[in-house]
Amino acid sequence: MKGTVLYGPGDVRFEERPEPKILKPTDAIIRLAVSCVCGSDLWPYRGIQPVTEPQAMGHEYCGFVEEVGSAVKTVKPGQFVIGSFCLSDNTCPNCRAGYQSGCQQLEFMTGAQAPYARVPLADGTLIATPEKPSDDLLPSLLTVSDVLGTGWFAADAANVKPGSTVVVVGDGAVGLLGVLSAGQMGAERIIAMSRHPSRQKLAKEFGATDIVTERGDEGVARIKEMTKGIGADSVLECVGGLESMMQAVRSTRPGGSIGYVGVPHNALLDLQQVFFTLVRLHGGPAPVRRYLPALINLVLEGKINPGKVFDLALPLDQVAEGYRAMDERRAIKALLRP
Amino acid sequence: MKGTVLYGPGDVRFEERPEPKILKPTDAIIRLAVSCVCGSDLWPYRGIQPVTEPQAMGHEYCGFVEEVGSAVKTVKPGQFVIGSFCLSDNTCPNCRAGYQSGCQQLEFMTGAQAPYARVPLADGTLIATPEKPSDDLLPSLLTVSDVLGTGWFAADAANVKPGSTVVVVGDGAVGLLGVLSAGQMGAERIIAMSRHPSRQKLAKEFGATDIVTERGDEGVARIKEMTKGIGADSVLECVGGLESMMQAVRSTRPGGSIGYVGVPHNALLDLQQVFFTLVRLHGGPAPVRRYLPALINLVLEGKINPGKVFDLALPLDQVAEGYRAMDERRAIKALLRP
Repeated sequence: MKGTVLYGPGDVRFEERPEPKILKPTDAIIRLAVSCVCGSDLWPYRGIQPVTEPQAMGHEYCGFVEEVGSAVKTVKPGQFVIGSFCLSDNTCPNCRAGYQSGCQQLEFMTGAQAPYARVPLADGTLIATPEKPSDDLLPSLLTVSDVLGTGWFAADAANVKPGSTVVVVGDGAVGLLGVLSAGQMGAERIIAMSRHPSRQKLAKEFGATDIVTERGDEGVARIKEMTKGIGADSVLECVGGLESMMQAVRSTRPGGSIGYVGVPHNALLDLQQVFFTLVRLHGGPAPVRRYLPALINLVLEGKINPGKVFDLALPLDQVAEGYRAMDERRAIKALLRP
Repeated sequence: MKGTVLYGPGDVRFEERPEPKILKPTDAIIRLAVSCVCGSDLWPYRGIQPVTEPQAMGHEYCGFVEEVGSAVKTVKPGQFVIGSFCLSDNTCPNCRAGYQSGCQQLEFMTGAQAPYARVPLADGTLIATPEKPSDDLLPSLLTVSDVLGTGWFAADAANVKPGSTVVVVGDGAVGLLGVLSAGQMGAERIIAMSRHPSRQKLAKEFGATDIVTERGDEGVARIKEMTKGIGADSVLECVGGLESMMQAVRSTRPGGSIGYVGVPHNALLDLQQVFFTLVRLHGGPAPVRRYLPALINLVLEGKINPGKVFDLALPLDQVAEGYRAMDERRAIKALLRP
């Protein structure tokens, strides 16, 4: 089969790869229904994260079970499954505490920008839907695997509650789905920080009540102005830079919470500055497995349509164009069809 | 009167100062019953925090109201009062949310290492006891003003609950009272990190169940070993350095909480490292005012004896020796008697 491999900055190739095989009795092999490019794939693509050897790419996935290892009990060939980008046993103390992304056996999914992929720790990672979902639901179900689960965690980590005032920093797919998540959690006011008309539009569709286009000091001043000088109850940091984190810190009220889910790069945080703001910080790789059942249901019941973040759909063999389009911000997120 | 002034690193003087006066209608003047030296006074004393001009020192206080401004309604001359080191109006939205240390009118107390001191925002800051407390309770009541209130906030910010496993980093007075606070909140296991026999002893009196003397990698390994490889539910960071913060971060389980109350100095935190640990961070200047009524009651009812942190008592005019003894770690905390 052919699959996606990143050789270095800007160098994505769709090339011949070995078919995935069961390597451990806890593995499953799936046939991808759809796949996509993640914002975090852009870190190595842009050279911000070093690429020391060719990497099989793709960690967001859903599709049909082809084969399972001898120890797998909860899914079987033919079922439609969705799993988290974090592979977990779902039985260790960290998993039981709801932090499957801190599983003692944690692995990260790779190789899902391909027709077939191996999913280790299948029992602890995958959820099967009751029946084969209709094709129009596939993009939304795919988002549950990472981008929606991550936006949801951002809102949860930021302690969004009914009535909360929420700010979302970052208008990528995660930020936009952070807006959707905050709305589902009952936020009264959701301020999306964005200066791109198409993203502003989608943010509003997802439930944003206000758009702020200013950044830095002006952005903070604007948020303070909108919140009686106090700051927001909850701020979702969905970028991963130092500037965006400080934007979040300075936009939060004392005792308010920041959920941060963008992998921080070159972010040395001056803890004294954070200290005097009295904010709460929680984040990390999202424990998507915790949210999978509920989020799958919201999609299957038609209550949310997170698949709208895909504003570009490509055949899998044009994956390189998906990276380019996202890198150049021509696309919010690229769906790949095997 | 004479009061305490810091001129520069190591240069504490007890010298003639103007008597404090009512400057605003919301002020009170108090006669100090006891005062003390705070661990945070050592930052400028050690030259780690610059001293640009002579500073009147002392922000922990309790004593008798001498005089009040025309707008003060809740305390009156003759009453015994205790207040937070953070002066707050206790009516703004941040105060009402329980974050008086983020008050929109916030000021910090100064000049309390003296016989008399001015307390701005008296109504929002001071609590009067029902009657004059007995002399033996004065040291414990004094701790409520900052060092106990701060240790309590560390435990609260670290989300200590009945049954929690707690680690306390820092064996200064705040750390030791963090141990006491965690015990009051029902922690099942309280691991104090300390290598000083006298402080270990006091930690145990305050409720520590275990002592860990190792630091750095070895300290983390020891905590992991004691917590089935997971880390603690709650970690109290009571130092304010980068090393101690990383000790805390690495000792916390995924989803666990760190309460940090040491003012961070030279602490540029690598957010990517923190990100992958999935810990929660909350801290800052303690909103002591929130806790004052409950903590005063615990002392008056004899349920806690936080005054034990004072292992040195000096007449106020020997304040310089108090700084020296704490700087050299000969004393945990120095009480000053006017």
